[in-house]
Amino acid sequence: MKDDLMKMLEEREPEMIEIRRYLHEQPELSFHEEKTASYIADFYKGKDVEIEANVGNGFGIIVTIKGASPGKTVGLRADFDALSINEEADVPFKSKNKGVMHACGHDAHTAYLLILADCLIQLKDQINGTIKIIHQHAEEQPPGGAKSIVDSGKLDDLESIFGIHILPMAPAGTVGYHSGYSFNGRSYFKLRIQGIGGHGSSPHKANDAIVAGAYFVTAAQTVVSRRVNPMDAGVVTIGSFDGKGSFNVIKDSIELEGDIRYSDNEVQEVIDKEFHRIVNGLEEMFDVTCELNYTADYPPLYNNPELTGFVADTLNGIQDKDIKEVKEFPKLPPSEDFAYYLEKIPGSYFFIGCTPKGVEEPYFNHHPKFDIDEDAILVAAKSVGHVVCSYLDMN
Amino acid sequence: MKDDLMKMLEEREPEMIEIRRYLHEQPELSFHEEKTASYIADFYKGKDVEIEANVGNGFGIIVTIKGASPGKTVGLRADFDALSINEEADVPFKSKNKGVMHACGHDAHTAYLLILADCLIQLKDQINGTIKIIHQHAEEQPPGGAKSIVDSGKLDDLESIFGIHILPMAPAGTVGYHSGYSFNGRSYFKLRIQGIGGHGSSPHKANDAIVAGAYFVTAAQTVVSRRVNPMDAGVVTIGSFDGKGSFNVIKDSIELEGDIRYSDNEVQEVIDKEFHRIVNGLEEMFDVTCELNYTADYPPLYNNPELTGFVADTLNGIQDKDIKEVKEFPKLPPSEDFAYYLEKIPGSYFFIGCTPKGVEEPYFNHHPKFDIDEDAILVAAKSVGHVVCSYLDMN
Amino acid sequence: MKDDLMKMLEEREPEMIEIRRYLHEQPELSFHEEKTASYIADFYKGKDVEIEANVGNGFGIIVTIKGASPGKTVGLRADFDALSINEEADVPFKSKNKGVMHACGHDAHTAYLLILADCLIQLKDQINGTIKIIHQHAEEQPPGGAKSIVDSGKLDDLESIFGIHILPMAPAGTVGYHSGYSFNGRSYFKLRIQGIGGHGSSPHKANDAIVAGAYFVTAAQTVVSRRVNPMDAGVVTIGSFDGKGSFNVIKDSIELEGDIRYSDNEVQEVIDKEFHRIVNGLEEMFDVTCELNYTADYPPLYNNPELTGFVADTLNGIQDKDIKEVKEFPKLPPSEDFAYYLEKIPGSYFFIGCTPKGVEEPYFNHHPKFDIDEDAILVAAKSVGHVVCSYLDMN
Amino acid sequence: MKDDLMKMLEEREPEMIEIRRYLHEQPELSFHEEKTASYIADFYKGKDVEIEANVGNGFGIIVTIKGASPGKTVGLRADFDALSINEEADVPFKSKNKGVMHACGHDAHTAYLLILADCLIQLKDQINGTIKIIHQHAEEQPPGGAKSIVDSGKLDDLESIFGIHILPMAPAGTVGYHSGYSFNGRSYFKLRIQGIGGHGSSPHKANDAIVAGAYFVTAAQTVVSRRVNPMDAGVVTIGSFDGKGSFNVIKDSIELEGDIRYSDNEVQEVIDKEFHRIVNGLEEMFDVTCELNYTADYPPLYNNPELTGFVADTLNGIQDKDIKEVKEFPKLPPSEDFAYYLEKIPGSYFFIGCTPKGVEEPYFNHHPKFDIDEDAILVAAKSVGHVVCSYLDMN
Repeated sequence: MKDDLMKMLEEREPEMIEIRRYLHEQPELSFHEEKTASYIADFYKGKDVEIEANVGNGFGIIVTIKGASPGKTVGLRADFDALSINEEADVPFKSKNKGVMHACGHDAHTAYLLILADCLIQLKDQINGTIKIIHQHAEEQPPGGAKSIVDSGKLDDLESIFGIHILPMAPAGTVGYHSGYSFNGRSYFKLRIQGIGGHGSSPHKANDAIVAGAYFVTAAQTVVSRRVNPMDAGVVTIGSFDGKGSFNVIKDSIELEGDIRYSDNEVQEVIDKEFHRIVNGLEEMFDVTCELNYTADYPPLYNNPELTGFVADTLNGIQDKDIKEVKEFPKLPPSEDFAYYLEKIPGSYFFIGCTPKGVEEPYFNHHPKFDIDEDAILVAAKSVGHVVCSYLDMN
Repeated sequence: MKDDLMKMLEEREPEMIEIRRYLHEQPELSFHEEKTASYIADFYKGKDVEIEANVGNGFGIIVTIKGASPGKTVGLRADFDALSINEEADVPFKSKNKGVMHACGHDAHTAYLLILADCLIQLKDQINGTIKIIHQHAEEQPPGGAKSIVDSGKLDDLESIFGIHILPMAPAGTVGYHSGYSFNGRSYFKLRIQGIGGHGSSPHKANDAIVAGAYFVTAAQTVVSRRVNPMDAGVVTIGSFDGKGSFNVIKDSIELEGDIRYSDNEVQEVIDKEFHRIVNGLEEMFDVTCELNYTADYPPLYNNPELTGFVADTLNGIQDKDIKEVKEFPKLPPSEDFAYYLEKIPGSYFFIGCTPKGVEEPYFNHHPKFDIDEDAILVAAKSVGHVVCSYLDMN
Repeated sequence: MKDDLMKMLEEREPEMIEIRRYLHEQPELSFHEEKTASYIADFYKGKDVEIEANVGNGFGIIVTIKGASPGKTVGLRADFDALSINEEADVPFKSKNKGVMHACGHDAHTAYLLILADCLIQLKDQINGTIKIIHQHAEEQPPGGAKSIVDSGKLDDLESIFGIHILPMAPAGTVGYHSGYSFNGRSYFKLRIQGIGGHGSSPHKANDAIVAGAYFVTAAQTVVSRRVNPMDAGVVTIGSFDGKGSFNVIKDSIELEGDIRYSDNEVQEVIDKEFHRIVNGLEEMFDVTCELNYTADYPPLYNNPELTGFVADTLNGIQDKDIKEVKEFPKLPPSEDFAYYLEKIPGSYFFIGCTPKGVEEPYFNHHPKFDIDEDAILVAAKSVGHVVCSYLDMN
Repeated sequence: MKDDLMKMLEEREPEMIEIRRYLHEQPELSFHEEKTASYIADFYKGKDVEIEANVGNGFGIIVTIKGASPGKTVGLRADFDALSINEEADVPFKSKNKGVMHACGHDAHTAYLLILADCLIQLKDQINGTIKIIHQHAEEQPPGGAKSIVDSGKLDDLESIFGIHILPMAPAGTVGYHSGYSFNGRSYFKLRIQGIGGHGSSPHKANDAIVAGAYFVTAAQTVVSRRVNPMDAGVVTIGSFDGKGSFNVIKDSIELEGDIRYSDNEVQEVIDKEFHRIVNGLEEMFDVTCELNYTADYPPLYNNPELTGFVADTLNGIQDKDIKEVKEFPKLPPSEDFAYYLEKIPGSYFFIGCTPKGVEEPYFNHHPKFDIDEDAILVAAKSVGHVVCSYLDMN
């Protein structure tokens, strides 16, 4: 069956590119992807599949392809939301929604998966088992769409799940994998420190919230410098110190906001505990009242080692002119809500190189000039096609 | 002559109160006291004195009273600006300019000095020497009016200068004095710290201005805790830490503003030097660029010990039913631009008690509910009258 | 009687100097002044007075002189201990006890008081009331001798107490006074911070006591910079940070020791409270265990304003060729256990100038080259003589 | 030839164990391994090899085995020094040098390599190329022996180098490898901060070195928390803060010492630069003088990816009952001076599991109870034997 599938994908490459460009022109922000979702649903209309729309906390769509023969149940996911970035890439199919841009490649993800799904639908007779196509909304914006789709129970029957992300770290033709923890997790905090205002000349009658906040910032450095295992990754960024006031008035309260990253759940636990401890200590030390809102956004993404090995072995074992290199990629600092699927379902999230041809230093995902080599779309379709066929024992 | 003067002042007390209430209803902000200045100038119209208006950097007025006999030249100063405070005192002559209030008593200062000046004009034939009446604009707002009046050269002939402030630290009838440094000096700073912005997950690619700012705030504490002589007074207040930003973006720059107080010039020099040193060290330590705007507002006010002794002895030596007690007051934390006169001209700035009758815990100057015992106005007029008469050897 | 007393003192000036030089050669450390105390007790042997030795927690001596007529009971105190300083002053009567020196002038204090006491004993018939001469041990070393003498109850009958300190801030002939708080109080602390030791490469498995200690030191700066009234004096000095260890081993515990000064009891309370608060906050913030030993040594010395006015007026009102100037002195930063007497008994502790003749920049008390103008001894004797006579109404 | 070699090694396993136990009983500290070196040299006496003793800055020994046929030149290294640890392991061949212990397994390293070398000597006729056996002194104590041996030029002809470390992270039979950076590098610093001493009550007359030191410690936290790439490893440990003094004397100078770790050279450069920057900033910020001694000890160990792949492939490809598993190991936090060879010569340093049989939580290297499964010695000999044979194309 693989050969048939690969041939079909090759033939429909122009269609993938066309879809990608169409989506690129019509980007929609997370949780507001109404048109994109309609477009996707329309694509499946009339095909012999079960379609569920509005899955989870947004416009999520699940398409179930039931194979002719019994077998395993596997999920394939692509996300479809865009970012609030004003496109600066010089492409003919530039975003028509000012201030919104597919700067992360979700347009390409959706394009490959629509065509791959359609081919699989056509090959249903040869399929053992069931394939669930997950078109996910809102990956870019916590709480994200993934968690709600998992919580919906509609994926409870999956035995495995796979997904890819295009990355300009390598040229089209390269597929990357990483076993174990592969993306950092992320938490958010907001901290309000309440002291007592007063006149600048009389600090003893007030209780300076700016001073308390400054000591907090310096103490918070020790979480990463002394509490996190140096062989792991942890970041505590205080992105906002809102303490604007009059020069001669002692500030009564300030508000900090920040971004916390961690390479695995153990690091998350350490940072969480130590961060709270420092806030509690601050209250006592400076006699201030602290209001802390601390929430975990996306967990660290953990690729199942066995299934990641399976992906690597599968792709290494094939002869395909479009898949030129399969290699280990490093752990990546950003976060990705595919992690939520992997908390419940064994699976692997892997990488498709997409450096634009002739470019030495490509713009990365989320840059206003982000651009891709569209050859990567076919590579994505074929790679995931190989994996799903092998996984369902269809050669 | 003193007896004549005192009698005249007693008779004209109702007029002083009337003027004070009129001014209280019509407060004007520093550098915008157009109507107040007209009112004052009109008061002197047709009287046998020299009037100079628009002295200095605003609406300052100098009225010169030349005595019949030769003698010393002495200045008497009262300020006439109000504050941007919304009056909450429950008085029938409440401010008619919403958001502006004579919350520091400059209305009473002006009222007593107008009547005192008028009486002195009427007694010109008995006066030895020259009296310059200084109606000063803009005391509340740096750079203030005093410095510009001094710089105008129009007071170069003064041998001494006197002034008073009403304070609710003591009841009407009490006069306070303090020799040497009596009000704190004040400096202002604005510090911009420029780092490099970046993504919250990648601190190593950015240079976090909030972190640099926080370490600055903690290091700045040592100026007061370790560099200022503990027997002197010094304050470094950082009233504004403007570092609002996105939680997951490393802030590229922040701006701090603050208020610095010092009991004498030596302390000012220490703080100035150490503050600059810390800013310079910060640039090196955190590889940031600092832009520091540091300016001295008002110097510490230094009462000439001899003339302060003269004021104390003069007032202690008289029998006046309205001046019940003359005593030393402590050094005061605020700042006062009378200090500029005293940098050039020996003199003394002293205090007139004004606690409202029956009030145990009066609201202080600059409070929206600030109120006074109007008996204090006559006490001010008489005290300054005694002092100027004795100073010019007119008993 | 005053005239008789002054004449006697003048005649016995050489004896005072002789005694002072003898004591200077034989200095003894606090709580070890055995020979000095014997010398003093021997001086009174055979005289018509009551002598109590070994008063309090050391070699304190109280000599009671009962006047012929009834009257008030007043105390006069001089201290007699020396310091562990190696004398470097070039005087013929240099210390014979290596490493011990009368570098604070207690030799002169004792010398004047012995002779003054002897004269008063001789004039007993003219005395109204009772004079208690207090020769106090151990002023230099907390807990000091004063508190224990007060606690002995033997001074419960005093109505007032007076004492002096010689100071090279002014020449012999000058007497200084200061009303209200005049010397700073002092507290001591020892803080042990217990973390968890570990290997330098693995901070996450340890809990670094040095880091916790460093943050403590920086946070402790805010006690003085932000909590103490800037018009008052407060000092927090951390004199010892005992954290020596191996470069590559994370330190499990450290010990800090320090010295705290305050101008009045209110400041003491503020520092005490805030210091404990910071220690408590530190425990929480860094998950360390703190053991704090915090004790008040000597309270701030408070001169009774009425009696200080009495001293000033008395000495200003006399004609005495040896007392050339009587003036206000500033508050002094050091501490003095005379404060303990003044907590229970109204009194005044005043100052006797002693700058060596011809010296512009004298070495201060506690300097190895400290030296005095011995004329100051007679000034001390006469000043205290005048005060006690006037106080007991003997002119 | 491999089969012959393996057979010989199996037969001589008892001898390896005997040597290891002998060395274990006779441990010698780094740079003092006189007897150990003699023992090794004696072992080779009379054999047909070139022996060079006292190579480098200590007792290093290089033994050159010239094969019969031409070929590549490869180095095999084992270290032979022990640690100043008092052995607590309960073994019959416990250390006879009190306070010195082979707690890192260098005894086993030497034992396997002696026998492997001897076998190779016997098989010289079948060898293509040259094998240099490097018995290295002083691995545990910077500057270590490796750098000086490299600098001697005696290894300039090596095309590759291999070595192993026994680790109780895995049982005997497991061989581990890691490509790229595999051990952390390490630097050492000593920082003297010179301020100005003074009396505890007068901070303004002194310049407190403890306060400057404390701010240094807090600022130094930012090197790891904000300057090092979170995906890399960096540690800055301040192991010693030597600031012991008198509680009431402001400390004039303090001395800090510390330990710095980094996962690769880029991190080392970042830490080096930022550390110096903070020290320079401190001088300016607190007006202190800093004397910094900052030296790199051992660089991060970088395993050549190609040769590491070669090791992994070679050992994965063989059938050997003693080598049961070959797998990737994680990066390791400690440092190792094999790194110096790898800076000049491509090679790979790999790992031999040695968990004592039946032990779940083994004591790690450098622990006083460190113990090994002696089966690991044969595994080491065979693994290195396989690698060197394959490398020199002798199957």
